[in-house]
Amino acid sequence: MKEELSIFYRIFTTTKDAIEKFMNMLDPVIQNAKDDHERLYYHHIYEEEEQRLSRLVELIPLISKFEKEKDEKIFSPAKNEFNRLLQELNLEKYGLHNFVEHLDLALFQFTDEERSSLLKQMRDVSYQDYQQVKEMLNKINERFDHDYVDPHAHHDEHHDHLAPPGYSLIIKQSNKKKGFTVGSLI
Amino acid sequence: MKEELSIFYRIFTTTKDAIEKFMNMLDPVIQNAKDDHERLYYHHIYEEEEQRLSRLVELIPLISKFEKEKDEKIFSPAKNEFNRLLQELNLEKYGLHNFVEHLDLALFQFTDEERSSLLKQMRDVSYQDYQQVKEMLNKINERFDHDYVDPHAHHDEHHDHLAPPGYSLIIKQSNKKKGFTVGSLI
Repeated sequence: MKEELSIFYRIFTTTKDAIEKFMNMLDPVIQNAKDDHERLYYHHIYEEEEQRLSRLVELIPLISKFEKEKDEKIFSPAKNEFNRLLQELNLEKYGLHNFVEHLDLALFQFTDEERSSLLKQMRDVSYQDYQQVKEMLNKINERFDHDYVDPHAHHDEHHDHLAPPGYSLIIKQSNKKKGFTVGSLI
Repeated sequence: MKEELSIFYRIFTTTKDAIEKFMNMLDPVIQNAKDDHERLYYHHIYEEEEQRLSRLVELIPLISKFEKEKDEKIFSPAKNEFNRLLQELNLEKYGLHNFVEHLDLALFQFTDEERSSLLKQMRDVSYQDYQQVKEMLNKINERFDHDYVDPHAHHDEHHDHLAPPGYSLIIKQSNKKKGFTVGSLI
């Protein structure tokens, strides 16, 4: 668990830094938006990342605290704080997933060399980090066999539409499935 | 607390139903998207709402369980499950906030009578519900004086840019503040 905590620490510290860079990029775009629609669009993404940033400000010290823990018994689903850590990590897995999509959306519009190269670089790192977090959490959730049920598990089971390239095809195919229960869009 | 739980139950059951209606509206738009950008845009919003729906599927029975609780002592921050309930409610306050913005974004694009009237109706209900959740949680958090620190509190303190009309002006003004620490965009 210690080794995984150290990787989580690195990943969430990195993404916290990336959020700040992304927010800095969005700020002038919001200020200079050509109309209300454009302004709301970028402001909305800005706020979602701001919410994630605020959660990470709480999560990172929690990871750090567990990383320093000498008593291995603390890594047990019977311990409430450890359970909370696992729940937060599972939530931030989706935070990373959504961040990759925010970056992809920005890449469609910020096509100048300076912004697109920064966005691409953050996109690549975030995508790799998302994959690693997903894999580690699968193993941890399996290992502890605790009562946490990942409410989004269906999302990861069948495909990974973030994987470049050709994701649009996968999205198209997945949309052929009809009926709007949870999980209809795999 | 019982009375508040019954209001939370009504609000989150209502918004769960609204998410499903909204996802049904987005589905054909994703399928018939004119390009990858448009497809990713709607698919991204769809997924964020799908994530929220999955969380509500867990939260609603938890609210219901506490609503039926006979022992008032359970409503204490010393009880871990009650703490978890408060944390989830605080998270879903932002889920509702983001939903209002998703509906506002959709209103810019789905301008036909049928969709826009459904969107407006859901927007009005969701906005009222968001305000009520915010107010109730402020009171609850105050009353219990527990150690929960709302990581987004700064967001609510100074303004409510969701309030129609004229929110764009408020956003413009708030963006005049520079420096990208947490909370720079109030």
